[in-house]
Amino acid sequence: GILDKKTLGIGLVGSGFMGRTHALGLASVGRVFDLPVVPRLELLADATMPLAEAAAARFGFARATDDWQSLVADPAVAIVDITAPNKLHAPIALAALAAGKPVYCEKPLAPTAEEALTMALAAERAGVVTQVGFNYICNPMLTLARDMIAAGELGQIWGFRGIHAEDFMANRQTPWTWRLDPAGGAGAIADIGSHIIGMARYLLGPIAAVCADVETVIDRRPLPGQPDELRTVAVDDQARLLVRFGNGCRGTVEASWLSSGRQMQLEFEVIGEKGALVFSQERFNELRYYKTEADRSRNGFRTILAGPEHAPYGAFCVAGGHQIGFNDLKVIEIRNFLAALAGGPKPFADFREGYEVQRVIDAALLSSKNEAWVRL
Amino acid sequence: GILDKKTLGIGLVGSGFMGRTHALGLASVGRVFDLPVVPRLELLADATMPLAEAAAARFGFARATDDWQSLVADPAVAIVDITAPNKLHAPIALAALAAGKPVYCEKPLAPTAEEALTMALAAERAGVVTQVGFNYICNPMLTLARDMIAAGELGQIWGFRGIHAEDFMANRQTPWTWRLDPAGGAGAIADIGSHIIGMARYLLGPIAAVCADVETVIDRRPLPGQPDELRTVAVDDQARLLVRFGNGCRGTVEASWLSSGRQMQLEFEVIGEKGALVFSQERFNELRYYKTEADRSRNGFRTILAGPEHAPYGAFCVAGGHQIGFNDLKVIEIRNFLAALAGGPKPFADFREGYEVQRVIDAALLSSKNEAWVRL
Amino acid sequence: GILDKKTLGIGLVGSGFMGRTHALGLASVGRVFDLPVVPRLELLADATMPLAEAAAARFGFARATDDWQSLVADPAVAIVDITAPNKLHAPIALAALAAGKPVYCEKPLAPTAEEALTMALAAERAGVVTQVGFNYICNPMLTLARDMIAAGELGQIWGFRGIHAEDFMANRQTPWTWRLDPAGGAGAIADIGSHIIGMARYLLGPIAAVCADVETVIDRRPLPGQPDELRTVAVDDQARLLVRFGNGCRGTVEASWLSSGRQMQLEFEVIGEKGALVFSQERFNELRYYKTEADRSRNGFRTILAGPEHAPYGAFCVAGGHQIGFNDLKVIEIRNFLAALAGGPKPFADFREGYEVQRVIDAALLSSKNEAWVRL
Amino acid sequence: GILDKKTLGIGLVGSGFMGRTHALGLASVGRVFDLPVVPRLELLADATMPLAEAAAARFGFARATDDWQSLVADPAVAIVDITAPNKLHAPIALAALAAGKPVYCEKPLAPTAEEALTMALAAERAGVVTQVGFNYICNPMLTLARDMIAAGELGQIWGFRGIHAEDFMANRQTPWTWRLDPAGGAGAIADIGSHIIGMARYLLGPIAAVCADVETVIDRRPLPGQPDELRTVAVDDQARLLVRFGNGCRGTVEASWLSSGRQMQLEFEVIGEKGALVFSQERFNELRYYKTEADRSRNGFRTILAGPEHAPYGAFCVAGGHQIGFNDLKVIEIRNFLAALAGGPKPFADFREGYEVQRVIDAALLSSKNEAWVRL
Ligand SMILES: NC(=O)C1=CN([C@@H]2O[C@H](COP(=O)(O)OP(=O)(O)OC[C@H]3O[C@@H](n4cnc5c(N)ncnc54)[C@H](O)[C@@H]3O)[C@@H](O)[C@H]2O)C=CC1
Ligand SMILES: NC(=O)C1=CN([C@@H]2O[C@H](COP(=O)(O)OP(=O)(O)OC[C@H]3O[C@@H](n4cnc5c(N)ncnc54)[C@H](O)[C@@H]3O)[C@@H](O)[C@H]2O)C=CC1
Ligand SMILES: NC(=O)C1=CN([C@@H]2O[C@H](COP(=O)(O)OP(=O)(O)OC[C@H]3O[C@@H](n4cnc5c(N)ncnc54)[C@H](O)[C@@H]3O)[C@@H](O)[C@H]2O)C=CC1
Ligand SMILES: NC(=O)C1=CN([C@@H]2O[C@H](COP(=O)(O)OP(=O)(O)OC[C@H]3O[C@@H](n4cnc5c(N)ncnc54)[C@H](O)[C@@H]3O)[C@@H](O)[C@H]2O)C=CC1
Repeated sequence: GILDKKTLGIGLVGSGFMGRTHALGLASVGRVFDLPVVPRLELLADATMPLAEAAAARFGFARATDDWQSLVADPAVAIVDITAPNKLHAPIALAALAAGKPVYCEKPLAPTAEEALTMALAAERAGVVTQVGFNYICNPMLTLARDMIAAGELGQIWGFRGIHAEDFMANRQTPWTWRLDPAGGAGAIADIGSHIIGMARYLLGPIAAVCADVETVIDRRPLPGQPDELRTVAVDDQARLLVRFGNGCRGTVEASWLSSGRQMQLEFEVIGEKGALVFSQERFNELRYYKTEADRSRNGFRTILAGPEHAPYGAFCVAGGHQIGFNDLKVIEIRNFLAALAGGPKPFADFREGYEVQRVIDAALLSSKNEAWVRL
Repeated sequence: GILDKKTLGIGLVGSGFMGRTHALGLASVGRVFDLPVVPRLELLADATMPLAEAAAARFGFARATDDWQSLVADPAVAIVDITAPNKLHAPIALAALAAGKPVYCEKPLAPTAEEALTMALAAERAGVVTQVGFNYICNPMLTLARDMIAAGELGQIWGFRGIHAEDFMANRQTPWTWRLDPAGGAGAIADIGSHIIGMARYLLGPIAAVCADVETVIDRRPLPGQPDELRTVAVDDQARLLVRFGNGCRGTVEASWLSSGRQMQLEFEVIGEKGALVFSQERFNELRYYKTEADRSRNGFRTILAGPEHAPYGAFCVAGGHQIGFNDLKVIEIRNFLAALAGGPKPFADFREGYEVQRVIDAALLSSKNEAWVRL
Repeated sequence: GILDKKTLGIGLVGSGFMGRTHALGLASVGRVFDLPVVPRLELLADATMPLAEAAAARFGFARATDDWQSLVADPAVAIVDITAPNKLHAPIALAALAAGKPVYCEKPLAPTAEEALTMALAAERAGVVTQVGFNYICNPMLTLARDMIAAGELGQIWGFRGIHAEDFMANRQTPWTWRLDPAGGAGAIADIGSHIIGMARYLLGPIAAVCADVETVIDRRPLPGQPDELRTVAVDDQARLLVRFGNGCRGTVEASWLSSGRQMQLEFEVIGEKGALVFSQERFNELRYYKTEADRSRNGFRTILAGPEHAPYGAFCVAGGHQIGFNDLKVIEIRNFLAALAGGPKPFADFREGYEVQRVIDAALLSSKNEAWVRL
Repeated sequence: GILDKKTLGIGLVGSGFMGRTHALGLASVGRVFDLPVVPRLELLADATMPLAEAAAARFGFARATDDWQSLVADPAVAIVDITAPNKLHAPIALAALAAGKPVYCEKPLAPTAEEALTMALAAERAGVVTQVGFNYICNPMLTLARDMIAAGELGQIWGFRGIHAEDFMANRQTPWTWRLDPAGGAGAIADIGSHIIGMARYLLGPIAAVCADVETVIDRRPLPGQPDELRTVAVDDQARLLVRFGNGCRGTVEASWLSSGRQMQLEFEVIGEKGALVFSQERFNELRYYKTEADRSRNGFRTILAGPEHAPYGAFCVAGGHQIGFNDLKVIEIRNFLAALAGGPKPFADFREGYEVQRVIDAALLSSKNEAWVRL
């Protein structure tokens, strides 16, 4: 039973938006899935002791600390889970890898591809399981899409159109946040663009070349609590990319956090010779599918609803059409990580993959700066 | 912290579709919400010891039993949670109430309104908190709809159209199940119709009269594992109701488990003098809203996406558009129950409400039999 | 060529909303379709001479009159086309039939089934072609739906859900119109309900029994131009029907002109053992189709777009997805009429059909009054 | 009245897909709109006499010819209307302009920007009204979109995403057509891309720079009727553009005729600081609109339905939600042309505009060839 299973002590760094989602997922994963090992909420680190203690109490971690280094070093911590702001990913992860501990880190992996490569190499040297938090690809409907493409159900792939647009920065008065800190890397292209780039790679494989137009639209923001104190914004608000995949298919990718009215426009279309797929994260329990047939009179895009036919949906609900939620995607992600730790296949989005996504981002920034195509 | 909180021992009866959802929700609720008390997975009962033990191990219950009576009597069990087939609801609940224990019971409350009334009266006599598992009304978008109606944002209400249709019985070869057992009450009108009837009541209040057409379409089904052995079906497959609400508004309600292609067509429209609402459970993180305005040139139904503005969505995710899942509805339902136990407001769907829903079902069956309107 | 074809002199009565649509359709039909005969816009009658002359000039009728009787008698008028208010349908049509002239009349055919029967019998006695303006069934997607049902593509039909709801009377201040004149028959159930009832019959055949709830919600309306002068409304605003078809299938039908936010909610669902169809007139170049298949993993409702595969779409446009418009439906309707005059099959919606629709309406009114089922 | 109005003799060249649509529109426009002049179907030219005579007879042209030069010279022809394949646009139009006749020409205006410029200059020299057949911008919902943007209802514009994708060439076996003839100009980017480029300009003004990726995917096609005889395809199947508008806004534009499942994916999103618009030609009687408001709890994209509030919808139908069709767009386009001839404002899409669109296409081709941004 779950109560007797081998546990792995988790050290979670950060308890904000993602910290909370990780904590919830870590606490549920063992009941949703029947795993060989289950997480134990051992230690939570945050920037200050009050923050760490409050979060530990709230989410049920046994202990709290304001020092991520001690967390990494803690013998009861078997896994380091990083949900701190981007610029902390590398130092924490490298320390954990140096200590030989598996690392589960939020996206984007690092501020630059160079730093991400260092992390990937360290991970490979350490020989431990790593994972980057690209939760959206953990959706059963994404697995379905990838499997259909891989099985040739769409025939040769001719086009990809991907976007991740939201509007959480669309108001000029929205104050400065760590997401605008250039020490943490790029802006929208990294923060949400990394999701659609990762998704594109998950579905279609490597991106071989990009040509991008990246821009900062709102170039000053008030400081938090100081509406009259404006700080210059150096990172991008919007990015648009022409892309060419290694498999010959071409397409576009976009990212924006200024997209008025959009709360989760993470969308793609994959067009192939024998059909097409259309997906929107705003309705992520659906996948629209067109299957080319000789007789068009009764044909059209069909809306597939997620159900137990689409593993691992059935682990959450035995009946189709009921829908899994955002937090459940994280549960699947954590399952993948734990399964890998128990000897299963390594997660798709490991540090190497995190580095590859970062390479695309860096290439896009370079391309935009030089107004030229960049080969990867 | 959650680890130090007062716990309430849960005795769960049944570990099928709903048993699993309850177990998952009971295990997560304390981390999603900051509650005064948290559940303790104490004892799980199922029809046989192997079933009970496997489920207890799987979901993390401390103990297992094949005797729900001993579960009810167990001193460590503070709450009795019933997810067994319908015909067992009354005996288990009445035993628990007799023992003075709060009861959380799946819908429909009972096979008949008469039995449901007995249960409601017993609950009121016992003075304990009760709740029926109408999870769909726990959706933040439903709360929004109800609040908008109550606040007069739609003006006087002129019409209601509700339906709950699925297709899980649409194949003639789908074998006999306990859902077809007349000892458990009606068919589709009870199994899923109870959801839309309860939803109608949640939004608009009491139903004063019904006129119904209830039918059995597939009148024989094979026994499980015996495709050639047919058993007569006595319960309804489809039900259609004209309804009149106490507030003067009229409408229709339908239920069907033969609705080819539909996996979760739990839908309603509420039409008022100043606007209208349209909802579909297949996209339950959305609510479509029309607000009547003098200038129609820029007006139309708008699609509201669930977000932290719609409590308690924010307990699951701080950003809008990310979506909660079906299991999260159950988490909210359990939160409501625990909050009531800790002195908060009683759940909307208590046993009295379960009885009221059952009265509508019984009235519909009677109406259909007599081909006449039935006043409630 | 079209310029040398035999022409039929049209006498059009009325030049309001529908008069205009008829005039446009009569003028285009010969170019859209290659017909043996083409209409000649001969004579237009309206209530007054100025109205008639203005409309004749505007739409290209050769002559005008303020006396529909002289129009009916006019030797150059070969076809009488009626788009006057409902209460004039019978007198004009009966006069035309008495003169042996084919009649094309707007829906609803007559204020009562009795009067509609008189008209149908007169038409049959006269042996001329008649047609009632149920234009929505002239949609190629409706023909597709009917053909699929007739061919058994949906298997045995288990359910129908139909509605025609708009909001053009939803504002209490909207003044009295001839649509509220009880001399013209019922209210919403006749005005728009006749469309969905006719559509139901077109798809599934005769309705054998109804049980209805019909209501007047806004019982007084200002007179036109006299906002303070209120006149009592005696006709229905909303109607809800349980229906049973002759083929054994059951369902519901609704009509409302108070449905806030709806401009053309003429919708149906047909559910069968092997699939289902969903249609909305707001997107009438689409038909949603679910085809039951053993493997659900890639299945779902598909959206068929109207194209040249769906005759007579191709007469308007050789490429799919371009869409025909409302006025084009009328062009198809007129084509059907002219084709019948030239010896082709009689229109589906002849006066007999108009009577049958009226019978359902009368039965619904009687049912509602008596709160009882009415067999037809 | 329309029968007494001044007529303008039309000389139509071509009677294929577009020739037919023009003929239908020319025949109806005078009844839909009350215009100072009305078209007279005078002369139709096609490639051969049988083709021309059949079409003239079918559509009601008085005369036919197989010589477009004589059509241009014909004294009864006041307007030259060109619906022949692209490579004929320039010779015919230049001849007509030389004869001082107004020209209405299908899109794309010419195979190259250079040729288009010659045509625009000739038109300006001749001082006559010209128009290019960008019918989609004649949609009342497009006018609404443009007006909203121009009035600042969306605030500063931050982004544009446009596409025109269809699948009529997605089947490798679809034979060679004049659309693949390089003498007629580019492929998908010209054939359908011109529509979305024109639309972008209509909404947001000049495009200042492009960076494009243009590709031929299916590089050989069978000849018509000779499935085994393959001919090399030199024009593009797909094009993807990064664009920068003169107003500072940036975006993407795509064109493809290989987009499996798409029959009319002519779509755009315009994102501004105060809101956003989303449009799809597959549902062109709708416009989705998000209006940013402080309170998000009841906000979301709303679906505006075309109605008489959106001129000139009311000329077709007095009630909203009924929908105009593709052919009606052409009627509006012809109205615009005739109104200009009668002294009204010149059409938006005159030859100068046709040239500007062509410049963007040429720039995209150049950009793709050189893999570099091209300023316009
Ligand atoms: N996978 C996904 O869908 C999402 C991923 N993310 C990623 O998650 C990470 C965190 O983002 P959010 O949770 O949104 O940010 P947040 O600002 O809500 O939370 C960051 C947390 O890190 C803590 N922190 C800051 N400095 C620290 C230090 N020195 N030591 C320990 N803790 C420290 C903060 O106090 C806070 O608890 C980022 O990398 C972000 O890109 C964020 C949102 C969604
Ligand atoms: N709220 C909702 O959305 C839903 C509610 N339900 C309701 O939940 C209840 C259970 O339905 P499902 O979970 O779908 O059924 P199920 O058949 O999957 O599970 C029933 C469980 O009860 C157990 N059981 C049977 N006899 C028992 C006994 N004598 N003692 C102890 N356990 C016994 C079975 O072994 C099984 O574990 C029903 O009342 C149903 O109407 C079901 C599905 C959805
Ligand atoms: N098929 C469809 O979708 C629709 C059908 N209709 C039907 O069309 C008919 C007319 O409706 P609308 O055009 O909307 O009404 P309307 O009020 O716009 O037009 C009625 C016309 O009849 C004329 N009229 C009145 N008395 C007359 C008389 N004694 N002699 C000659 N003409 C007279 C009026 O002056 C006016 O021109 C009705 O039966 C209505 O139900 C109406 C709208 C849509
Ligand atoms: N605005 C729109 O939405 C559309 C515009 N078009 C444009 O319309 C034009 C025609 O395209 P379609 O009608 O689709 O082509 P089509 O191939 O259907 O018709 C072309 C017509 O031109 C005639 N033609 C060929 N050579 C001729 C000659 N020497 N003299 C006279 N007539 C000749 C052909 O016989 C045929 O009747 C093209 O420029 C195309 O780009 C086409 C489709 C849609």
